[in-house]
Amino acid sequence: MSQLVQDALSGKRRAMARLISIVEEGNARGREAIAQIYPHTGRAHVIGVTGPSGSGKSTLVAQMALEYRLRDLTVGIVAVDPTSPFSGGALLGDRVRMRALSGDPCIYLRSMASRGSTGGLARGTADVVKVLDACKYQRIFIETVGAGQIELDVARTAHTVIVVQVPGMGDEIQTLKAGILEIADILAVNKADHQGADRTVATLEAMLELAVDQKWRPPVVKTIATSGVGTAEMVDIVEQHVAYLHESGEIRQQARARLVRELQDILREELYHRWLAHVGQDRIKETADRLVARRTDPYTAAHELLMRAEE
Amino acid sequence: MSQLVQDALSGKRRAMARLISIVEEGNARGREAIAQIYPHTGRAHVIGVTGPSGSGKSTLVAQMALEYRLRDLTVGIVAVDPTSPFSGGALLGDRVRMRALSGDPCIYLRSMASRGSTGGLARGTADVVKVLDACKYQRIFIETVGAGQIELDVARTAHTVIVVQVPGMGDEIQTLKAGILEIADILAVNKADHQGADRTVATLEAMLELAVDQKWRPPVVKTIATSGVGTAEMVDIVEQHVAYLHESGEIRQQARARLVRELQDILREELYHRWLAHVGQDRIKETADRLVARRTDPYTAAHELLMRAEE
Repeated sequence: MSQLVQDALSGKRRAMARLISIVEEGNARGREAIAQIYPHTGRAHVIGVTGPSGSGKSTLVAQMALEYRLRDLTVGIVAVDPTSPFSGGALLGDRVRMRALSGDPCIYLRSMASRGSTGGLARGTADVVKVLDACKYQRIFIETVGAGQIELDVARTAHTVIVVQVPGMGDEIQTLKAGILEIADILAVNKADHQGADRTVATLEAMLELAVDQKWRPPVVKTIATSGVGTAEMVDIVEQHVAYLHESGEIRQQARARLVRELQDILREELYHRWLAHVGQDRIKETADRLVARRTDPYTAAHELLMRAEE
Repeated sequence: MSQLVQDALSGKRRAMARLISIVEEGNARGREAIAQIYPHTGRAHVIGVTGPSGSGKSTLVAQMALEYRLRDLTVGIVAVDPTSPFSGGALLGDRVRMRALSGDPCIYLRSMASRGSTGGLARGTADVVKVLDACKYQRIFIETVGAGQIELDVARTAHTVIVVQVPGMGDEIQTLKAGILEIADILAVNKADHQGADRTVATLEAMLELAVDQKWRPPVVKTIATSGVGTAEMVDIVEQHVAYLHESGEIRQQARARLVRELQDILREELYHRWLAHVGQDRIKETADRLVARRTDPYTAAHELLMRAEE
């Protein structure tokens, strides 16, 4: 095992930060590091938190982290922030949070920009979670913005998924469209002091009524993250979900499905890279010329490229 | 060319609907159909519309479609709706819209559920757009919810991207986090009769100030989609963007980049399927067992599987 991995596993914060950076890059060194830490993983409980931007997710996560600290559990936070090139949005949010959480060695906050490919980010996030897990963080939050596919992918890395909603935006069609209710284990209606909170809660509960055959019925919790209202209750419910997953055996099924998905993603990426190295980038360029001229279509072109590569 | 493709190209609506369904499935028949229609594509201008759920995108698109009809252009709409299993959210929205748009043979509306893989949906959407393009729809809207990666992927299929924002949610951090400003060609502040619209416009314009080296400066337009305010202006600006793209030559660069990406996605998927057929699903299962037991890690396991396959 490398010294860096050893240092990180023994709790040296700087080594851990360095290790995370390496893992995040996703190259050969990162893969090697993952192989080394992997036997130490599988202990943390991972909590995905998703919902629209502006819903107060970051604050809610910060409050829950502090609550977990009161209960003597260590907390990692991975914030997946789609950064705009216009400004350091992610950094700004982090600085605000850092102030609240800093100084406690048992809380670790890391943010990741959602640049590059979907697969890349989901995998990067999963790998960073592995590092935090191996470094003995007991509860790890993954926080994502929005309701797109990337959020669904990242949420699949989590054991417990919290979907945050806010009052007001909560008319029926909006909620139906969110499409993430199906992955929610817990629903938080944050900013519950705003107008319409009860209606939003009622709407969500009505929708949950329709889901009859679930063993775990997702609770709807009102929170006011800015003042901490509902935070302890949220943590209680997450812990009930932890217990439920273990007692029902679902945690094992989840783990297996997650690992298979992760394996497939890696294989897909690697197969393409190997193939490309074999065929050469020039062939792609030449094919692009023919596509632009509409002398071939993408499927036929792909088929031909694959045929030629086999020769 | 198959009869179905011929019928669709000659304007038979039912044949077109059938062709879209086939293409959407993404199997061999769909790929064949794409190969047949492909020489007829490349004429439509594709407009991506994205923004948070509840922002009134669907209504805005419906209004713009009607405005385009006044200008004698045919309009296709592809609505990418993440459907919740709790209810037919997509269908509900569609039925509302259908009422406004139905009866006009020169408008075609199709919705797609965002199930399955990200890649699958982005590719399916691109293929449905190809059918509409070949069937002579001149302006094609792709409407997506949220600001996740899938929206970015789908937006890349578009020539012009409209990002819809609403007042109120528009504090600085929310907007910064949206992370989709970088892909916006036009910004619409919908529900402009709501409180805070001017502040949202000002915030967006301030952010755009920071982007100095853009040749096309994204305009910010106030709209009230429910009453049609701003619709004609939106269409005017889209058409200015169409002219800009052609005059600057950007449209050709866009087209090429898009085709290369599409080709790569197909290759990636196909390579994995071929490899899996060769290696066998059993090997994946067996590897999953070892992963669950933490006797190997995903990267090492992938590496070993690829090695074995080469033997």
